[in-house]
Amino acid sequence: MENLMEEEVAIKKNGVATHAKSMKALVYNGPGKKSWEEKPKPVLKETTDAIVKILKTTICGTDLHIIKGDLPEVTPGRILGHEGVGIIEEVGTSVSNFKVGDHVIISCVTSCGKCEYCKKGMYSHCEKGGWILGYMIDGTQAEYVRIPYADNSLYPIPAGSDEEALVMLSDILPTGFECGVLNGQVKPGDTVAIVGAGPVGMAALLTAQFYSPAEIIVIDQDQNRLEVATKFGATHVINSATENALEKVMALTNGKGVDTAIEAVGVPATFELCEEIIAAGGHIANIGVHGKSVELHLETLWSRNISITTRLVDTVSTPLLFKTVQSKKIEPKKLITHHFKLDQMMEAYDTFGNAAREKALKVIIES
Amino acid sequence: MENLMEEEVAIKKNGVATHAKSMKALVYNGPGKKSWEEKPKPVLKETTDAIVKILKTTICGTDLHIIKGDLPEVTPGRILGHEGVGIIEEVGTSVSNFKVGDHVIISCVTSCGKCEYCKKGMYSHCEKGGWILGYMIDGTQAEYVRIPYADNSLYPIPAGSDEEALVMLSDILPTGFECGVLNGQVKPGDTVAIVGAGPVGMAALLTAQFYSPAEIIVIDQDQNRLEVATKFGATHVINSATENALEKVMALTNGKGVDTAIEAVGVPATFELCEEIIAAGGHIANIGVHGKSVELHLETLWSRNISITTRLVDTVSTPLLFKTVQSKKIEPKKLITHHFKLDQMMEAYDTFGNAAREKALKVIIES
Amino acid sequence: MENLMEEEVAIKKNGVATHAKSMKALVYNGPGKKSWEEKPKPVLKETTDAIVKILKTTICGTDLHIIKGDLPEVTPGRILGHEGVGIIEEVGTSVSNFKVGDHVIISCVTSCGKCEYCKKGMYSHCEKGGWILGYMIDGTQAEYVRIPYADNSLYPIPAGSDEEALVMLSDILPTGFECGVLNGQVKPGDTVAIVGAGPVGMAALLTAQFYSPAEIIVIDQDQNRLEVATKFGATHVINSATENALEKVMALTNGKGVDTAIEAVGVPATFELCEEIIAAGGHIANIGVHGKSVELHLETLWSRNISITTRLVDTVSTPLLFKTVQSKKIEPKKLITHHFKLDQMMEAYDTFGNAAREKALKVIIES
Amino acid sequence: MENLMEEEVAIKKNGVATHAKSMKALVYNGPGKKSWEEKPKPVLKETTDAIVKILKTTICGTDLHIIKGDLPEVTPGRILGHEGVGIIEEVGTSVSNFKVGDHVIISCVTSCGKCEYCKKGMYSHCEKGGWILGYMIDGTQAEYVRIPYADNSLYPIPAGSDEEALVMLSDILPTGFECGVLNGQVKPGDTVAIVGAGPVGMAALLTAQFYSPAEIIVIDQDQNRLEVATKFGATHVINSATENALEKVMALTNGKGVDTAIEAVGVPATFELCEEIIAAGGHIANIGVHGKSVELHLETLWSRNISITTRLVDTVSTPLLFKTVQSKKIEPKKLITHHFKLDQMMEAYDTFGNAAREKALKVIIES
Repeated sequence: MENLMEEEVAIKKNGVATHAKSMKALVYNGPGKKSWEEKPKPVLKETTDAIVKILKTTICGTDLHIIKGDLPEVTPGRILGHEGVGIIEEVGTSVSNFKVGDHVIISCVTSCGKCEYCKKGMYSHCEKGGWILGYMIDGTQAEYVRIPYADNSLYPIPAGSDEEALVMLSDILPTGFECGVLNGQVKPGDTVAIVGAGPVGMAALLTAQFYSPAEIIVIDQDQNRLEVATKFGATHVINSATENALEKVMALTNGKGVDTAIEAVGVPATFELCEEIIAAGGHIANIGVHGKSVELHLETLWSRNISITTRLVDTVSTPLLFKTVQSKKIEPKKLITHHFKLDQMMEAYDTFGNAAREKALKVIIES
Repeated sequence: MENLMEEEVAIKKNGVATHAKSMKALVYNGPGKKSWEEKPKPVLKETTDAIVKILKTTICGTDLHIIKGDLPEVTPGRILGHEGVGIIEEVGTSVSNFKVGDHVIISCVTSCGKCEYCKKGMYSHCEKGGWILGYMIDGTQAEYVRIPYADNSLYPIPAGSDEEALVMLSDILPTGFECGVLNGQVKPGDTVAIVGAGPVGMAALLTAQFYSPAEIIVIDQDQNRLEVATKFGATHVINSATENALEKVMALTNGKGVDTAIEAVGVPATFELCEEIIAAGGHIANIGVHGKSVELHLETLWSRNISITTRLVDTVSTPLLFKTVQSKKIEPKKLITHHFKLDQMMEAYDTFGNAAREKALKVIIES
Repeated sequence: MENLMEEEVAIKKNGVATHAKSMKALVYNGPGKKSWEEKPKPVLKETTDAIVKILKTTICGTDLHIIKGDLPEVTPGRILGHEGVGIIEEVGTSVSNFKVGDHVIISCVTSCGKCEYCKKGMYSHCEKGGWILGYMIDGTQAEYVRIPYADNSLYPIPAGSDEEALVMLSDILPTGFECGVLNGQVKPGDTVAIVGAGPVGMAALLTAQFYSPAEIIVIDQDQNRLEVATKFGATHVINSATENALEKVMALTNGKGVDTAIEAVGVPATFELCEEIIAAGGHIANIGVHGKSVELHLETLWSRNISITTRLVDTVSTPLLFKTVQSKKIEPKKLITHHFKLDQMMEAYDTFGNAAREKALKVIIES
Repeated sequence: MENLMEEEVAIKKNGVATHAKSMKALVYNGPGKKSWEEKPKPVLKETTDAIVKILKTTICGTDLHIIKGDLPEVTPGRILGHEGVGIIEEVGTSVSNFKVGDHVIISCVTSCGKCEYCKKGMYSHCEKGGWILGYMIDGTQAEYVRIPYADNSLYPIPAGSDEEALVMLSDILPTGFECGVLNGQVKPGDTVAIVGAGPVGMAALLTAQFYSPAEIIVIDQDQNRLEVATKFGATHVINSATENALEKVMALTNGKGVDTAIEAVGVPATFELCEEIIAAGGHIANIGVHGKSVELHLETLWSRNISITTRLVDTVSTPLLFKTVQSKKIEPKKLITHHFKLDQMMEAYDTFGNAAREKALKVIIES
């Protein structure tokens, strides 16, 4: 942090610093504590940075985990949030893809575009970026945010676009698509199970339909979410609180199991269910953020010709997803259940933090 | 079995049965018991069968497991063995790819060629075949063997071929190649670790070199096998009995881990080592036959963009491998350490059963 | 043919021949001549054969070419037709996937299931089959047809299926899908052009939508077909008789061209249009049956990173397509414009032979 | 050019310009004219630039074409050359992967790392780069060169490397590998034909061996080059000046043709030979720079299930190739036949311009 301070000063000496103002932001103040408070407006630190004025942002389950204290590497004082759309307020001298006034999607993953990993399309492991926004550096639940490596970490929004829908491109759609659907190798005619009907499971449900599977079975314990899943294209739903999911999947698949099982919860029981329902030759695609190890039943799976994949979203599919949203192949807006203004941030957290009670999927918080 | 008896009689009534003679074979007589004994020579049961006179066969680690009683589904009286080359002695009326006198490779996996799985190239899960030879039906450690679906389960050997080398195509080479190298997605310039330097690990070592990886690290506890691995192309070897394999792999890879980790042992410790040494974006390819579950550390792996694969060998790569052997791209003959005659079968088992002491990899038993 | 006669006699001697009856069939009698005439009902020749009673068949553009005399290798006396659904009337002793009374889809491509090509999924080049039906052997425009290698060349139809829709699985859907969509590597968000809106172009149009491209531009000279294409999901249509197709495609794609260009006509002008409209990095997928060479503009294309593919349909995708039809992901029934009874075969040919005037795509001829 | 001048001035005003000195360089002075002459030493123009002092460079066939006047878009005064290794002399303020004194490989393709094409790994079509070096901007046949987008267009060389071998990574190895071997989908056991044994054909020959094909047939009219090809791993060579290449390839492949045909000449006759020798299911990979169209025999190829690919080298495989060179999987140094000093540049051109007579493949010109 000291070094960064020095850089900031250096830049000011060269006369390019923006006039420091204050802004409002959602700040993590240690386990269990958050507030909507005054913070300095961010300034350019590197020539590859952009300052973006937030138009719309949202809250992710990960933000709730940070606030609980589950990610102790997050330091108190951090502004949260890694999703949103905004307007370019200022750009560093090396930024060439964007200019002041451009509307942009902010990717949850920062990509430098020039390290070994970025060149392979594995932005999640970028040597200088990856997921840092609202985690290692200040994030998007604020009036302004500084975006490093803006040319590779922002995506342009043409005039006339539905920007609310595009907020879903920051994280949730690429996560469901890359970690669930692409890794799960969904094909036309396939049978897919999605375990977990939270926002990211729903994003997998929407994007799995790009590939025209014959059946999509969604499994969750929340009846409301299962009803929503049916509206979003699930061909079968299973309430695992009241039904035996394993038996029901096997009955639906003539005892063969599913071609693709997408884990979108992050606990041992749901992953192990995927192990049980996967057909010979099938693919288990993990999306869930796991806090502990799971039991892998190699004593049965060793001979089943399966694949298991993990992935931190790379957001490399953002341009592809953008084209599907613009051409109405999917309508991610469906995922939005509530709207708030930026200064209702605390209220938005209340709603999202009680998602089951509030029947919330994604909330939009706009300026 | 009753049904099969009836079929046999039916065929005899049609006058196509061969004159029943006896032969010598290695018979599993219940846990811990085996003998080289007189058995009836096999006869055609279906029009798609062939009877093959064994020229050369070998012993697999799985045979030892069966004899120990680890596979209780194997019934006493079963002739063991699922590898070998031979001469066609007789063919059913529907067999069109082979005629009496042809020399053939016997695949360890039986493929009917017409079920859903065979059409997908997943012969291991053939609805009527799969691995049945020397397991569910009598096998190749005998003077003669009946091969179901001969057109799809045998491969022709041109005159002048080195048939000893081709015995390795029955099981060990396709196993190392399909489960280890193909599933592990080995690429030019990659760093590969092979955990386990038994015969199948060695087959992975030989066939990994088809793709020109930069480094192949072989890990085992048997110093002799590690020396052999070095001769076979390993660039580094680690004796995990005396060295810290994890630390050493990390040191060799600048802390990044390996692009591909091939598990060729089948116990939790070796699989979990693979979990620890795999680089972000890497592939763990399981070959080992596991008897119990392993701990999958999703709490660290969830964000590492890795794949884990399992596979029972399909032998779908046999034609490709055959071409590499005939053109000397690999010399699988290197894997052969000992030679016996068929009537030395019990001695061959003694040697192979004490592989470490005898420095045995594959033994050839010939007529 | 002599040999086949002998086989037939041999089979009769063994007492398994069906009682020879006559049936009605559409027969090619030399260039320009066809008739609906009496022919012997087919009998089993090989143990792998099935005799199928035709329930529904159709006519393909290739049938018109044969009748014109464009395929001189077709001998007078040949029964035409390579598409249809039917009921199994009789099976050879080696057939195990089907029994008398089963309803089946007849694939236009015959696959032996055991040659080098069939094992690779390249059934079109099967050493004993490939496209032979209604071409080298008698076909499906008849009351009965003999199907060689029935286990690998027929597909089961469950009770209650819409059999009319399934006739499209014999040829047209796998052709549009395999040669056009799969070879063209259509992806979500892509821009696809389909040149030619005949039945196979329409099949490409329907199956391209499995992969959710953003835009599908259909180009033809028949205004009626373009209107149909719009109903079937084309996002843009271009009448190349009245519009400059090249200019219009470039205008629609901001001068970049299309990601995939599917040629579904078979003449130089349409293929060369594909060369002009293909974007850098794009794929030209040829479906058309070409009678002469085309000019390949390597002087511009050498540096454009494109692929060009050709393919005779393999029908290896039939199981996948079957699942998409059964689950209503596509409705191939849309392609059917006219219905006839078997004894109206000549009338059906009149209609299909004047497709533009009659606004015909596929005609169904049923028993 | 005017704009660039202005930028240069602007940078000087900010005080970061290097003191302009002169250097020696190979300059194109219009059709048929070149000279080794005094030119201003390049200076930084953008913050993403680097100035590299050339240690070793070479000459490409394309340079000869430019000098002949075949590429009229090249303006007189242009310094030629797009290959080489050097030392970083100076870096712009945004360059972070390299520092003064680092040894680097200069890629023939400039990649900005942030346009649509670079993000897809299609650097050849980079919106701001692509192949521009020694073509649209001054090149490497000089004492110094300015490299735009240095972070994405240079590759680091560790101390102790064989830098002469690494000059082959600028262009020739990625060209043979990407356009020939990867696009040609060479697999273990395959039969490959390479038509043209010039430097790039030889690079395809070396890199094809990464994938262990069973046979590599090299076809050329220069007996010396064919002898060299044999030393480099060709299993068969055909002198098409004295032998019927088509007949000979068909004889070698039992009439089936080759799995992969790599065109490395760039004239109609050699491309059309590839059309004739390609097996059903095979791949024609074009590397040659073509000046006119070729005849594509779709009347026979439409049903042969082939692919034809074109590609301008992207150099995206440079990191992979670097690892294969460092680990001695290939020895590209073999391609070097002659050595010169920088001030012998004109002599080097004489030798390379008479490659057949001089038995030249690649010449090294070093400082």
